[in-house]
Amino acid sequence: MDRIPGFRDFYPEPLPTTDVWSADLRRLIFERWADTARRYGFREYDGPPLEPLELYTTKSGAEIVSQLYNFTDKGGREVAMRPEMTPTLARMASAQERQYKKPIKWYAIPQLFRYERQQKGRLREHFQFNADVVGESDRAADAELIALLIDSLRALGLAASDFVVRLSSRNAWQDFFSRHCSEGSKACEFYQVIDKLEREPFEVSAAKLEALGFAINDVQAFITAGQPTDELRLILDNLAARGLGAFVKVDYGVIRGLDYYTGPVFEAFDLKGEFRAIAGGGRYDNLIKVMSGGRVDLPALGFGMGDVVLAELLKARGLTPDVKPRLAAFVLIEDEALRADSLALIQRLRDAGSSVDYSFVPARSDKQFKRALELGARATVRLERSPGGDLIAKVKDLATRAEHAVAPDDVVGAVASVENSRGSAQSDVRAEP
Amino acid sequence: MDRIPGFRDFYPEPLPTTDVWSADLRRLIFERWADTARRYGFREYDGPPLEPLELYTTKSGAEIVSQLYNFTDKGGREVAMRPEMTPTLARMASAQERQYKKPIKWYAIPQLFRYERQQKGRLREHFQFNADVVGESDRAADAELIALLIDSLRALGLAASDFVVRLSSRNAWQDFFSRHCSEGSKACEFYQVIDKLEREPFEVSAAKLEALGFAINDVQAFITAGQPTDELRLILDNLAARGLGAFVKVDYGVIRGLDYYTGPVFEAFDLKGEFRAIAGGGRYDNLIKVMSGGRVDLPALGFGMGDVVLAELLKARGLTPDVKPRLAAFVLIEDEALRADSLALIQRLRDAGSSVDYSFVPARSDKQFKRALELGARATVRLERSPGGDLIAKVKDLATRAEHAVAPDDVVGAVASVENSRGSAQSDVRAEP
Repeated sequence: MDRIPGFRDFYPEPLPTTDVWSADLRRLIFERWADTARRYGFREYDGPPLEPLELYTTKSGAEIVSQLYNFTDKGGREVAMRPEMTPTLARMASAQERQYKKPIKWYAIPQLFRYERQQKGRLREHFQFNADVVGESDRAADAELIALLIDSLRALGLAASDFVVRLSSRNAWQDFFSRHCSEGSKACEFYQVIDKLEREPFEVSAAKLEALGFAINDVQAFITAGQPTDELRLILDNLAARGLGAFVKVDYGVIRGLDYYTGPVFEAFDLKGEFRAIAGGGRYDNLIKVMSGGRVDLPALGFGMGDVVLAELLKARGLTPDVKPRLAAFVLIEDEALRADSLALIQRLRDAGSSVDYSFVPARSDKQFKRALELGARATVRLERSPGGDLIAKVKDLATRAEHAVAPDDVVGAVASVENSRGSAQSDVRAEP
Repeated sequence: MDRIPGFRDFYPEPLPTTDVWSADLRRLIFERWADTARRYGFREYDGPPLEPLELYTTKSGAEIVSQLYNFTDKGGREVAMRPEMTPTLARMASAQERQYKKPIKWYAIPQLFRYERQQKGRLREHFQFNADVVGESDRAADAELIALLIDSLRALGLAASDFVVRLSSRNAWQDFFSRHCSEGSKACEFYQVIDKLEREPFEVSAAKLEALGFAINDVQAFITAGQPTDELRLILDNLAARGLGAFVKVDYGVIRGLDYYTGPVFEAFDLKGEFRAIAGGGRYDNLIKVMSGGRVDLPALGFGMGDVVLAELLKARGLTPDVKPRLAAFVLIEDEALRADSLALIQRLRDAGSSVDYSFVPARSDKQFKRALELGARATVRLERSPGGDLIAKVKDLATRAEHAVAPDDVVGAVASVENSRGSAQSDVRAEP
């Protein structure tokens, strides 16, 4: 029996086949995201993976339903597996906004679902790092959010030579639109054309723009000139003060497809242009008011960054982090008379925080040693009885193959010193700037 | 608009209201579970939250469907939100078993879903720590798994005075059954009655047993005698060798409701008997064969531990871990001319791993300081210009209120030394035995 097409299985490393994903890499990416959010003072939240269908139709209209994993539950309720996190954020923040000091800085790492006709390799779910600021209209919040986005990617080893944040603004486009067209109701349609400009043939875009009363040459001249507005200048200066200026450029080719953006918008792309957007977001100052039925009116902004494009990019750049299995110690049990003592020793090591494995059943010495190597153990430990009847422990560093005899009471320290001599990849959740 | 009844919202601490859950506590529990699994050499895996309905009916029969969040997707496929992890584990392990050396030791922390008619306070989802061993028939594996269960609870501060693992065996009950009844087909029905013995009125159980040809007095005498079988003795001795003997007792009152258990079974309960089972599991040596259509035949065993009962128990025992907000430093910006320099300083601190916040907009000095306290900052940092024009940084320890002036280059070290002077609760994912 197979999993549902478009969904992923996550296996432990080393991966058994190329069509499954790495649970170890997923954990590492999540840890880097969460750690970067922590460094920026963003607090974690989460909502249910199943929400009322109405939450999405309120925000995006009835046409969104065709893209959703929605169904009627046994109680007759219309529900949908969440396709994005912003409606949940808006619901949660507006429900409790009086209880939190503004600005609210929150993040989540939800799994999101979209129903699409199945195409080869096309996924129906992904995990997405979401970060939002609620209750701050100053452009300093936009800069903070973009800095968080940049540092989330830097924490995974990506540099200014790998990616850039293309910064734009709905306000700049609104000005352009108003200068050329007095029918405000056409603005959304116009933005949709701009959003597709890089993906559609020139003639198609030109015709669509002409139908709206625009010349594509004017549009392209505006994009090419790329003069930062005052609000974008504030964001650029703020990022430059942080030393992050090299990661961002003004680019009006970005506008974001969704209707609800109201100010600065941005997308992160790999510089070679091989992948879809790594992340995208912007300001949506009216959405919480709409979603709360007018009850709560708070400016807000946020971004989302998916795990799939990111993992592909890391792989293409040779930056996939080392997620090989690691074990602090493998305890060799070569004398069954010492199994109980070995179990006590294993317990002591684990209590002290070391990862330890061993053979459940009697096995040849060389087989146990081979297993230790397969599991990435940094050390082996085995108990022996001295001629005088005392227990002694032999601790072997598997990198240097040096072996030392220590008293059983000193094994915890001896294993820790082998482990620390090269650092522990799996417990390293600290960003590497 | 509200969330769906029976689902939870997870908010950052301090919690705004009593009917939401703590995202910070959830993270801490997940970290302790994952860290304990790591210490035991268990590797992480995960599958989709949506699986083919058939995966559950194959294992549990068609009657399970009434308890599932199942639906027909837009492609006409019968699917269900996963109600338990074991079928996914069996699917994944059997699909790739040739690629992993046995025994396989795997864990996952899935969110699980059950459709139940909504009752007040009754949840339709929870998170569950799942750990399984595949490919080892020796009872040493049962002991290892129970030790992992015990240490998962110890990592959250629970002691032998708080909980006990009640250890039983389907084999012992099978022997009892065979001594009293020759109709093997009635065994499952008999096990169901035993499973409900503690929850149903005496007369009801007595009548059901009599209908099957058993006297309830015989059954109760067997439970009360509680003599460990040889296989249970092996497990008890193994746990005693680890120093974990006080956490486990033989108790034939436990049998586990599900049909598929084949050997030792166990459940962890709080000693005061106030809560439902904290965790439960056992050996299911035939399940992978059934689930793989006979293709793969591997012995296996596992347990599940939910987050809801566990959080309730920790709260009742005053053991809820400290999940107050924490921040390494709040940077006070009292002179707008120094905002750019302050942003550079903030970036430097965050790059070095510290969690830092500040005011996006100009604010009164006392208001900024109040915010630092609210956010649980350990230190404040503010830049000043010396009379000679040099930048100096004032680092204040908010516990002692001692303030030191340092050069901007030394701020990272100064903040780290304040932070380390009392340890960092949020970065401490190490178990505390």
